[in-house]
Parts: sequence; C-alpha cells; structure tokens
Amino acid sequence: MSEVATRRGGTAGRRAAKAGAPLVQKRYITREIPLYELLDPAGIELIHQQSLTILEEIGIDFRDEPALALWRQAGADVRDQRVRIPRELLLAKLALAPSSFTQHARNPERSVVIGGRNTVFAPTYGSPFVRDFDNKRRYGTLADLQNFIKLTYMTPELHHSGGVICEPVDVAVPKRHLEIVYSHIRYSDKPFMGMVTAPNRAEDTVRLAEILFGADFVDRNAVLTSVLNCNSPMVWDATMLGALAIYARANQAVLVTPFIMAGAMSPAATAGSIAQLNAEVTAGIAYAQLVRPGAPMVYGNFVTTVSMQSGAPMMGTPEPAMMIYVTGQLARKYRLPLRTGGMLTGSKIADAQAAYESMATMLPTLMAGANFVLHSAGWLEAGLAAGYGKFMLDGDQIAMLQAFAKGMDLSSESLAMEAIREVGPGGHYLGCAHTQRNFKTAFYRSEIADNNSFEQWEAEGAKDANQRATEAAQRLLKTYEPPPLDPAIDEALQDFIQRRRRELPDNVT
Amino acid sequence: MSEVATRRGGTAGRRAAKAGAPLVQKRYITREIPLYELLDPAGIELIHQQSLTILEEIGIDFRDEPALALWRQAGADVRDQRVRIPRELLLAKLALAPSSFTQHARNPERSVVIGGRNTVFAPTYGSPFVRDFDNKRRYGTLADLQNFIKLTYMTPELHHSGGVICEPVDVAVPKRHLEIVYSHIRYSDKPFMGMVTAPNRAEDTVRLAEILFGADFVDRNAVLTSVLNCNSPMVWDATMLGALAIYARANQAVLVTPFIMAGAMSPAATAGSIAQLNAEVTAGIAYAQLVRPGAPMVYGNFVTTVSMQSGAPMMGTPEPAMMIYVTGQLARKYRLPLRTGGMLTGSKIADAQAAYESMATMLPTLMAGANFVLHSAGWLEAGLAAGYGKFMLDGDQIAMLQAFAKGMDLSSESLAMEAIREVGPGGHYLGCAHTQRNFKTAFYRSEIADNNSFEQWEAEGAKDANQRATEAAQRLLKTYEPPPLDPAIDEALQDFIQRRRRELPDNVT
Repeated sequence: MSEVATRRGGTAGRRAAKAGAPLVQKRYITREIPLYELLDPAGIELIHQQSLTILEEIGIDFRDEPALALWRQAGADVRDQRVRIPRELLLAKLALAPSSFTQHARNPERSVVIGGRNTVFAPTYGSPFVRDFDNKRRYGTLADLQNFIKLTYMTPELHHSGGVICEPVDVAVPKRHLEIVYSHIRYSDKPFMGMVTAPNRAEDTVRLAEILFGADFVDRNAVLTSVLNCNSPMVWDATMLGALAIYARANQAVLVTPFIMAGAMSPAATAGSIAQLNAEVTAGIAYAQLVRPGAPMVYGNFVTTVSMQSGAPMMGTPEPAMMIYVTGQLARKYRLPLRTGGMLTGSKIADAQAAYESMATMLPTLMAGANFVLHSAGWLEAGLAAGYGKFMLDGDQIAMLQAFAKGMDLSSESLAMEAIREVGPGGHYLGCAHTQRNFKTAFYRSEIADNNSFEQWEAEGAKDANQRATEAAQRLLKTYEPPPLDPAIDEALQDFIQRRRRELPDNVT
Repeated sequence: MSEVATRRGGTAGRRAAKAGAPLVQKRYITREIPLYELLDPAGIELIHQQSLTILEEIGIDFRDEPALALWRQAGADVRDQRVRIPRELLLAKLALAPSSFTQHARNPERSVVIGGRNTVFAPTYGSPFVRDFDNKRRYGTLADLQNFIKLTYMTPELHHSGGVICEPVDVAVPKRHLEIVYSHIRYSDKPFMGMVTAPNRAEDTVRLAEILFGADFVDRNAVLTSVLNCNSPMVWDATMLGALAIYARANQAVLVTPFIMAGAMSPAATAGSIAQLNAEVTAGIAYAQLVRPGAPMVYGNFVTTVSMQSGAPMMGTPEPAMMIYVTGQLARKYRLPLRTGGMLTGSKIADAQAAYESMATMLPTLMAGANFVLHSAGWLEAGLAAGYGKFMLDGDQIAMLQAFAKGMDLSSESLAMEAIREVGPGGHYLGCAHTQRNFKTAFYRSEIADNNSFEQWEAEGAKDANQRATEAAQRLLKTYEPPPLDPAIDEALQDFIQRRRRELPDNVT
C-alpha cells in the first residue's frame, strides 16, 4: 500500500487494521474552496451595528476589579460592574488582535496556523463521562483522557491535541490540570490547550509551557490555545477574566466563546442571538487587547437552541447552522480567526441522531470558514460524554471534509479526456491505464463505513457503525508508540508537577 | 397547539403523537438562501467544453432505430448506432427545453414547480427490499408500497409522492406498474412518477394520467415526472429511449439521469466523470427535444464512486459531493432544472453510517440548488432497501433543511433589540414578552431526536433513533385518512386496469 493511498483514505483505520504501518500525519487544512456567505453585506452590517449599540447603550458586565480598572483607563463608561463601550473604542481595540497566528507544537511539524484559509480540528472537550469500549456510560478517568490523547495523536485529520477531552474524575480537582497538561505533552507532540477553571491553573499551564518551550519563546509565541466562556447574557465573570488576563499577558491564544442556549441566555430569535453573541465576543477580545495589545484571540461561537418544552439544548437544527455561517462573516469583517461548530449532538449514543446532528453542524462549520474547530471528534450527549466509537466515526468524516476542502482537481489527468476516448461508449474503465494510475487516490475510501453486500455484512456479525468504530479504536490504541520527549525536559516538568502536587490541596475548599 | 407551531416543528411526528391533529401540508421549498458555487466560471467552461468535444468527436450510442433516424434528420453524424453531435446542434436543442415547469397534482394545491429557486422532495425509489417495522429485511410488497405512499402523503416536507418507493414483489412484473400508479392516485393527492421499465408500461401510465386529468390537459401540462438512466459510459438503450420518447411526445417530464459508479462506468477522476455525465445528460435532453420541442426535461445526476478493493459503490464521500455542486452549476448554465442527491447511504441499517452519509449528500444537494430530489427519505443499502425508520428520520432532517432554506429572518422582531435591552446583563430570557411571543416558532424542534437527560432516555428504554423513528412510522400510519377521489374517475381507472390485467401476461416472456 503506497503512502499516497494511505494519505487519502481512512488512515487511522488502516493503521489499526495493519499494525506497524507508518503513522502519516496531515497538515491542517488550507481551504481551496469558496466560503458560503449566508447574508449579504447589508445583513451583516445590521447585526454588526446592533452589537455596537448593545455595548454602547446597554453595556456588559465585567465582574472583576482589574478588568474594570483597565476599561476605565481606556475611556469606557464604567458604572459599578457595567461597562459601556463607545463603538470607536471597541473597534480600535479589536483591530489590535492579529488576523492569524501560529500555535507552536513541541514538534515543529505539528505547529498550526490559526486564521486565514486554514482549519484546525481538535477533539471534543469537557465531558465528565465516557462511552467506553463496551459502549457503557461511566465517569471518565485519567486513563481515558490518555487514551483519547493517544487516539488524537494517531488520527492524522486531528491537528490539535485539545484539552480536557474527558474529565479525569479519578484525579483530585485542584490537581487535575497538572495531569491533563502533562498527559498532552507526554503522549502527543501536537499543540494543546491551557486550563481555565481557575487563574492559578492557568498560571501552572503557562509555567509548564515555559519549561517545555522556554520562557522567552512563550512570551513571543502562542504555544497554548485555551477556551473561555462568557456567561450569557452579557457577563464576563472573575474566573474567566482572571484566566483571560493570564493568557493574554503571556501572549497566549484564547477562544473567546459565549456558550449560549438561545431562548434562555439570548433571545428566542436567530438574528438577535447573534447580535448579542457578537457583542459578548468582541467585548472579550477588546478587553484582552487592553491587557496586552496584539494578544492572539479567536472569535468564538458556541450556540445551541433550547427546547421550550423540556429545557433541553438542541443541536444540528437549522438555526445554529445559520448562526455558524453568520459568525464566519462577522469574524472575517473584524479580521479575526473563527472558532465555531464541531460534531455536536444531543444523542446519548452514536446512532443516526448523533450522525445527522453532527454533520448538520460540521458541514456548515467547514463552509463558514472556521479556523479552529473544537469538538471535532467524540462528542455525545450535549457534551456530557466522550465516546470512543463516536471519536473514530467523526475522525473518518473529518478526513472526508479535508479531501473536500481541497476542491476539485481540474488538471488534464483529472479531466481524463484520453481515458474517455480510449474506453468509448459501452466500454468500462476498470482496466484502462488511467484507472491503473489513479484508482488508489481518486476516491476517498472509508475504513469504518461498510459498503459490502448485505450477505457479507451479516456474515461478519451485522455490526452497526458504532460497534465497528469502537473496535477500530481498540485496535488503533494497541499500535500506539509515544513520540520522543527530551528526558531533561520531562524531568523538569515532573519536578514542577511534584512540587505543585505538594502545594495544592486535595479538595476544593 | 397553534398551526404555526405545527408547521415549524416535526409535523408528522406530532400528528403521530396526537391522532386527530390537522394534516398541514407544506409548499415545496422556494430557496431564499444563496447557492454554493464550487467552481469558478472558467472551471465550469472547461468541463462544458470537454463535454461538447466528447459528443462531437467520440460520440454517444443511441441503440434505437427511431432515435437514430431523428438524429440523422437533425443533422448529426450517425454511423451505425454511434451519434456524433455538432456542438451548435446540441446547444440549439438544449435551449428548447423549459427552464422550469409545473408538475400538476390531482389536488391543485399539491402541484409543484420544478426549476428556478424551488426544491421538491420525493421519497426513495426502486428498492426490492424493505427494512420493516421489526427492523428486519425482507422483500417489499404492495402493502409496503402503499404504506410508504401514505407516509409520504402525511409528511408535509415531502412534496411529491415518488414512484416505485419499494418494489411490490408480490405483484407479477408485467402488471406491477398498474398497481403502483393506481396506488399513488388512490392513497395520495400529491404529484407522482411514471413507469419506465418498458415502453408499454410508460404508455399505460400516460393512459391512467389521461383518465385522471383528461387527455387534453395531459397534452398541455406535465402531470408525470419519470426517471430514466443512461447506461454509462455513453449508451442510451432502446428501453430507456422508448420510454423517453413516449413521455416526451406526451409532453411529460423526465429526470434524464446517468447512473454512474465512477471508476467503473466513468473515469477514476472527479472532473472527467462530470464531463462524461454532462455529455450523457445533455445528449438525452437534446434528443427529447427532437421528439417534441419544448418537452420538460430535468438535468439528472446520480453518481457514486466505486471501491476498487471491493467493487462496492460508496456514498456520502467527498467526490460525489463535489459532483453535486458542479452539476448544479452546469444545469444553471443550460437553464435546466436539476435533479441530484438525496439521502444516500451504503449502510444496511439506519445507523450512524447511514446518517453521516445521507447528510453529507443531502446538504450539498440543497446548497447546489437541486430542484427535484429523489431518494429524499427511506433509502438504505445503496438503494436495495427502503426503511420505515430511515424514512421518518430523513423526513425530520428535510423539514430542517426547509427551515434553513428560508434563510435568516432580519426583521426587528428577530433582531429582538428590545428584548436584549429589557433582559440586560445577567438576566434570562425565559419570562420576557418577546420570548412568550416567539418561543413556539423561533427554533426547530424535532419529534424524533431525543434531547432529554440520559436518565430519562434510559428510563424510556434507551432506544436508538431508528427504533424511535420506526415506532413513529407505525403511529403515523394509524392516523391515515385517504384524500377524496371522484368515484367516477376511480371507476374509470379501475376499468382500465382490469382490462390491462386481462391483456398482460403474468410472467415476463
């Protein structure tokens, strides 16, 4: 099997089927296809202007004294914790954020450019539960987290190791961040995320990154991309602002992302929800520029709608898809990188609902021009569970999106006029020279999809896609080999972690 | 429950849950969103010119004497069965086909406009097997076909009753077309398709349509849309040409559709496959214009890729998606209505594979500007099986696509500035007046997706989406009431069918 064929098809699955095959990583996507613009420029301007009016007239709460001081100093109208931001001030600060930046990995070949025509895929984030190898739901452990890090490392279509892929519930909360960050460094050489659940955990992440990359390098380069949420509507709280300030000051990237359940935390309306989200994001990014002008920030969008009957969040429905497209247009207007979308679903298991909803979110994500896609693989149950089967299924799908994003080859080899002439009416192409040259790379072939006959599928156990994918995850893990890590750096990381383990309490007090 | 809420949500499911609720049908989609153009005009011109060269230099086989005579008469270069068509001739004939036409239903409210910004959804077609209410695979029967016609009738998002949704294997082949056509007329009032498996079956379909609509009306209006396939590469055979001539002469619409497994029946290359398909379609439509200038024809595209390892067709992969977009651009170039896509999958069951592949086909179908979408609901196993669960799942998804196709509402009610002002930072929207006015219609709510808590889902039996959907199909069927049919017309239809039953043999000889 040639490397070319391996690159094109479902690499992870093929490796799993054939231990010892070389691990071929892929570069992040550079889109060669046009973006989809849902609204015309007048529509975007309408939402943009409404956001500016919201921030100028209604204002937004920054529940953090240092943040309020910075806003006062910058000339905003600050009363109690409410900050009203003149539109000129907001736009001037937004303009300081870079339109694109490199997040460095410890292996330079895995560094990613976030912005422009690039798309970087990262796995799911924050699940307390896993759906395990027996397709049972249970709490996540450190072993699960490390499994997901290893699977991500071995999935060429995932360019980023992510962060809290699942919660290692067997590790004490105050020390969990240390184990998570170390696991990403130890078991992968792809870029990873910083911890945000308390300012001191963000500090520890930056210290670990400094040990890994050198303090000077970290001050000059993004080596962490973390995710921080606004409390919608229109509240940035002290925990998030504390972490945001630490990362911005350290010149580290943040996905500034309101987490909105529209109808409860934003209006029961698509356009109004976007206008509010846009105000929240831009205020957060502008604030980061007050902390450190030029700090790399990503325009983040995470919106579900809420069922007014049950209160449950709904995903994969038409309104979040529209919002994904419109935030793409807004981010481009502000020349900011975009984080949106993912393989989102409310389904408890990797069934048809999970797949419909995931694709109905992920296709708009790609076509909207998302630059960073969290939750690209493994998400289940509105984020409450990370599934091994779902992870592999999603990985297969994003491999296909990468092929799609390359666009249609219009070379003469692809136009194949000579083959059409040679075969002629009533012939067939299986034997012709053009087919021999091209069949390995012409068409994507999934290793998880079953396209065999009914009889063969039945003879092989009539397994559904999730069963096959869960088995593929187990096989793939058996082939894992860690990337090399400098023993001196490893020792320094472990020394720091040992010290912090002693200093930190075992329980949140 | 207001009618507005019923229209927005999953209508069929809600009816199923609540027998006696009014059946609210939906108009076909008129897209208010932009289309997606994958290639630039130069790329489209390249493929267009290659197709013209194929037809002019290589030629295409028309294996039917009357067709060859018409081509000779029109000035094409005909040698044996090979027809070489000068590009000016081809384009002149193509230009005679209307860019849009109305297919009339026996209930005028269900008539559909095929072309322009409209999209019409029809169910799956041609499956010998069904996946039944026990999720078992078995041969289809007339009762199954009638069940699917009833379900289609009760699914507001399906605007067209389709044709051979599944094969009624319990009816003798030579008489099957009579039962199929009559079942559509009897159990639905939506527009339906004509039979194509032999010229005399096409004739019988036209006769039945004349009884239903009047011969004069049929001659002046499309009341049938049938599907005919080219034998790729580049062969139109006598069966298909016979049916095509009958329908064209009767001024009835045809989806002129090469059925291509790329790599076997077209080159192992995306661009070349499209160039060949484009030549095949345009030759077929031009021929129909020789039979009757102005006959309504639809540019059809049905392409899968073939796995060179197993020979199996592959669906939901990147290359067919690209081809869907490009045929949209080509059809618009020729000002022809487009048939493409659907909810296609190779999966044997309605699992995650089925849903990923279906959505990865259907979203491009909508965004490419498809005007007629066959296989919009129920397709499984590369078309070999029609599934009751899959039918309902797909119906739910296309309802969402219809909401998406309406685009984003930018009215002041949707921008919701007053609600944002009223609620303010740190508040919530659940109680505000704007939410009370809008919550029923703001966001699509699926009746099949389960977004409840894990605990509730488990307490309700931990059913997967296909189980829930299959049960919903059974519930919905129980609420079926036939639309009225004029008894005199019904009697005339039955008289014709009785006579033909006597005339036709029981076995194919």
